[in-house]
Parts: sequence; structure tokens; C-alpha cells
Amino acid sequence: MVELEVLKLENPDERYQVVVGQGNFSIFACDDIFRLLLTTTPAIKCAVAMNEAVPKLTRVTGNDETLKDLTSKNACSIGAGHVFVIMMDGAFPINVLGALKNHPAIASIYVATANPVEIIIAKTELGSAVIGVVDGASATRIENEAEKRERRALCETLGYGLD
Amino acid sequence: MVELEVLKLENPDERYQVVVGQGNFSIFACDDIFRLLLTTTPAIKCAVAMNEAVPKLTRVTGNDETLKDLTSKNACSIGAGHVFVIMMDGAFPINVLGALKNHPAIASIYVATANPVEIIIAKTELGSAVIGVVDGASATRIENEAEKRERRALCETLGYGLD
Amino acid sequence: MVELEVLKLENPDERYQVVVGQGNFSIFACDDIFRLLLTTTPAIKCAVAMNEAVPKLTRVTGNDETLKDLTSKNACSIGAGHVFVIMMDGAFPINVLGALKNHPAIASIYVATANPVEIIIAKTELGSAVIGVVDGASATRIENEAEKRERRALCETLGYGLD
Amino acid sequence: MVELEVLKLENPDERYQVVVGQGNFSIFACDDIFRLLLTTTPAIKCAVAMNEAVPKLTRVTGNDETLKDLTSKNACSIGAGHVFVIMMDGAFPINVLGALKNHPAIASIYVATANPVEIIIAKTELGSAVIGVVDGASATRIENEAEKRERRALCETLGYGLD
Repeated sequence: MVELEVLKLENPDERYQVVVGQGNFSIFACDDIFRLLLTTTPAIKCAVAMNEAVPKLTRVTGNDETLKDLTSKNACSIGAGHVFVIMMDGAFPINVLGALKNHPAIASIYVATANPVEIIIAKTELGSAVIGVVDGASATRIENEAEKRERRALCETLGYGLD
Repeated sequence: MVELEVLKLENPDERYQVVVGQGNFSIFACDDIFRLLLTTTPAIKCAVAMNEAVPKLTRVTGNDETLKDLTSKNACSIGAGHVFVIMMDGAFPINVLGALKNHPAIASIYVATANPVEIIIAKTELGSAVIGVVDGASATRIENEAEKRERRALCETLGYGLD
Repeated sequence: MVELEVLKLENPDERYQVVVGQGNFSIFACDDIFRLLLTTTPAIKCAVAMNEAVPKLTRVTGNDETLKDLTSKNACSIGAGHVFVIMMDGAFPINVLGALKNHPAIASIYVATANPVEIIIAKTELGSAVIGVVDGASATRIENEAEKRERRALCETLGYGLD
Repeated sequence: MVELEVLKLENPDERYQVVVGQGNFSIFACDDIFRLLLTTTPAIKCAVAMNEAVPKLTRVTGNDETLKDLTSKNACSIGAGHVFVIMMDGAFPINVLGALKNHPAIASIYVATANPVEIIIAKTELGSAVIGVVDGASATRIENEAEKRERRALCETLGYGLD
């Protein structure tokens, strides 16, 4: 009755940041989420693709043809109604998640990452559901003290340190 | 060990807007989420039903008997602990999602839609889990330029255009 | 050096709900805040007017000519840079404040009310600042127990009670 | 035309945390903000007092008689329409501000502190406006490196450090 499927999102060399979530009111939201993304960083390149159940279409809006192509293909492959896929360049998830979570047409965010992503999809007679996301390889052990220090040093190198 | 089940939510003619999510503290939240919904639109009709694990009950609060009946039946059919079902008339998900996502007893929103909804439920010895939602039929192709223009024209017709 | 002025907002018979706040990026925000308001209630009538410093203009967007006229006159009378005035019908402040406070171009809200409003403005050589708002007459005493019961009964009458 | 006044908030020995803000819909909000505060910390003692313009009353709700008395006196002394005063014990501003800023009847927060507080009030013919708050004594010099280390050590002592 329920068939499970795994779909690997297309993202050449994991070059782009990816966000997948559940929304609604696609005819409005697809454009409006795109416009919201434009407010998050000064020079973001991005596209938003969102599935509609009636008619059975993937809508797409963006400011970069490669990203429009990738997001619409990925969203259409997922298929599940009201699911959206965002792919972007020049912005990280931490730059956009706060805004996205507050958007009135977004119910929840499944994943936000530049790791390789697999979407676990359940298929029924009615349609499809995202039931999980694989966000890169699995952890196998707990960090030690040296690695904790390295991690914090890396954060400082990335500019997140205190003077 | 884990059994999957598909439950179609009862919503005659998809007349009502439906929101399903995961919360906590049902004895307080059921009433408080209802009260919050009342602040979202001037004349909302709505009901909130929420599952309790101990005792094994579905709580319900609302201002419309049909909606109270539907939400409590749907929540009880889902069964999963701390899951809530909202059904409403006179308001759309974009009118309420912002408020709901900020409510202190709401962990996340699974779906918000007026499409036909199937809930995919995993059953264990302890209880049930919502593991996915089918929000209407799946998209099968990407919209073309004519459909994009139609979508935007429809948004204008619905009142979302600029003067 | 600093001159204080009191400006009474124009709102015939206090018929409309008024929100005044401080924002930025008017050329984008004026339209985008209007669009956001459209998501808050199904049939809102509203206008957003926002002041620009260069050029010295009041921008306005809306779906009702009376409201566009009133908001733009009020915003222009206030004059202060990046101040916006929203006036609306068919929605109350509690229906829109959550959305407004999360909008990326809104810094803060000075007042949201249907009481008579006076804006206290400080004038310098550079321009004007909203330094306070008078939101109706001042309270003169603390409610007694009978008035507390009346207030709660009124809330129930308005539909904010529990079943 | 505009008369300025300074009002010192009553708070014996600065024992309680104080929050002052601008809201609306007092008959609903006074109780609802109180209920919201109860969700913020496990054993908060608090009261919310809020001014109404018609009738000219200060509403109050709380779970502690001393706090109800102090907040209602302070709010009534401020007088300004739709201004609310919260006083609390067993919770700090950082425990409640996130929730308060999201409440649908709250426009903005003027101050949140346990310092001595003075409210600067402008009086017009219509009523009063809060135009500023004095939150304790003024800073007179910039911290040196030793004081920066002390400050961070104090944060660690207070439990906000990293392992």
C-alpha cells in the first residue's frame, strides 16, 4: 500500500545550497518566497520550484537559469504536492532560514544543506509524501577534545570569533 | 517491527482548510491554540483537536460543531501522541501559519492545505508516528511560460496584484 | 535646536485601523508590505504609504483609493524618513502585527490602534523623527472586579471564549 | 503644546523585572499576555497591567497580589493609551522577550530591565505618549581588556559558558 523510494537530488559537485520544505498556495508562494530570498543577502543567486496538485505542475521562479533548471527538475522528481525546492549561490542556509520559517506560506523545512541529499519518498494511490531526508553521510563517533578545539578554531577562521 | 499505514483525512469535498502538526502540553495547548487562531482573522470558524498519551484521549476545542466533530475524529484516527489537527473556514493557511509556528506549544507543522490529505503513519509497540503527508496529487511536469503567466494573472485576480 | 510638534492623524470617525512604524528600503518595502498584508486576512482593504528621503517623496500602494489617499496624506504630514503608515479595513492589528514585525524591511512599530492618534514629532535641521504616539485618551483609574468581569464577558461576546 | 514629564516606576529595591511596551486590544490582550508569560518559565510570578482609552481604565491580570498592585499603579501613572507594564519574579527578560515580541497584540517593547526605570512622557490635549525610557544610570567610559575578560568570566559563572 505504501511504497518507499529514494531520490538523490541533482546538485553538480554539491556546488549549491539546497533547502527543501512543505508549503502551500503555490501560485502565490513560489514568487513570494523568491522575493523573500532576495532580501536575505546582497547578491544571492537563487531559484524556487514548488509543486502544485491541481494542475499537476512544478512552478519555478528564479534569477539564474541553471538554478531554475535544477530546482524545477528536483521538485518535479520529488513530485509530492506543495513541496518546494530552493537552490542558491552566494548565500548560506543561516542567511535564509530565519526568513523562510517566518514566511506565511511555509509550513516546515525538511532540510537545508550543501551535503549530498537523498529524499525518502512514500508513494500512495493519491500521491507522494516526503518522509525523510538523508543529509550527507552518517556520523560514526563522538568528537574528542582536540577536534572540539579545531572546530572552534575553524569558526574563528571563518570570521565567527570574538575579539 | 514498524508497520506503515495510510489514513485519508475526512474533509467532505475538501471544503475546509486543514493543518496538522506536532505539539505538546495538550491540556493547555488545545485551548490556547484555538484562542490564537481567533486572533488571525476577524471571522474564523475553527476547531483544534489534540491527542494526549496519558490518558489516551483526543481533546477538542472550537467554535463550530461540524469542525469540532471532524477534527476530533481525524485526530483520534491518526492517534499519534501530541499530534493536533486544525480545520477551519473563513481563513487560509497563509493567514494562520505565522502565528501557529510561533506558538510555544507547537513543535512543527506537517501540512497546511485544502487538497485531499493522506497521513502516513508508522506504528510501533509504544504508539504511532506521523512520518509523512500526501498533500494532493503529485506534479508530473514543469510549468511552461504560458502557465507561468496564467498563474500570475490568477494571483492578480485573487487580489494579490499591485495598483 | 529640537522643536516638538504634535500631528493628529486623519482618520474620519476613527473608522480605520492604523499602524505606524519605522522601516527602510521604501522603493521595495512599500509594495512588499502591502503584499504581506494581503496574506493576513482573506478580504483586507489596505494601503501602505512610506516616506523616502532621496528623493523627498511619500510612496503609496493599496487596494482602496480612500485608504491610499489617507495613508499618503498622513505619512507625508509626518514627513519623517522611512516612516510608514498603514490604514486598513476588514482586519484588526492582532491580525497583522505578527506578520509586520517579521517583515525584513520593518524596524519597529510605533502604534497599532483605532483610537484617535497623535504623532509627536521632533524636528531638526536634517529632518523629522517620530518620538512618541498618543494612542487615545489616558487611563485615570484601575478597573474594579465588576469591570474585570465585564471585560471578560465582552471578550466572550466578541467570540474569544472557549466552548 | 507638548509637556514633558518624568515618571519613576515603583519597584521596591528593584526587586522585580520590568517590561513596558505598546500594545492594543486591551480587553483581550491583558489576559492573553499573562497566559503567554506563564509559558515562559516553570514558576514565574507575574502581572500584566494595560491601559484602555475608552473607558479610561487600567486593566490588570496576574498571579501575585503585590505584582498586580505594582503593575496597575505604574501603568495608571503612565496613563498613555494601550501601554502595558509587566512585572515579574522568577524569570528574566531573556526568558520572555522572544514570546512577547511575537504576541499578536504587542506592537513594540519600550524597556525590559531590573534597573531603576524612568518613563519620559509627553502630554498633549488628547492624552499621553511614552517618548523614552531611562534604564538605569548612564555609561561614562569604555570597558578595558581586563573588564572584558571579567565580563566573559561572569557569563561563565552564571552558567552561559561552553565546556
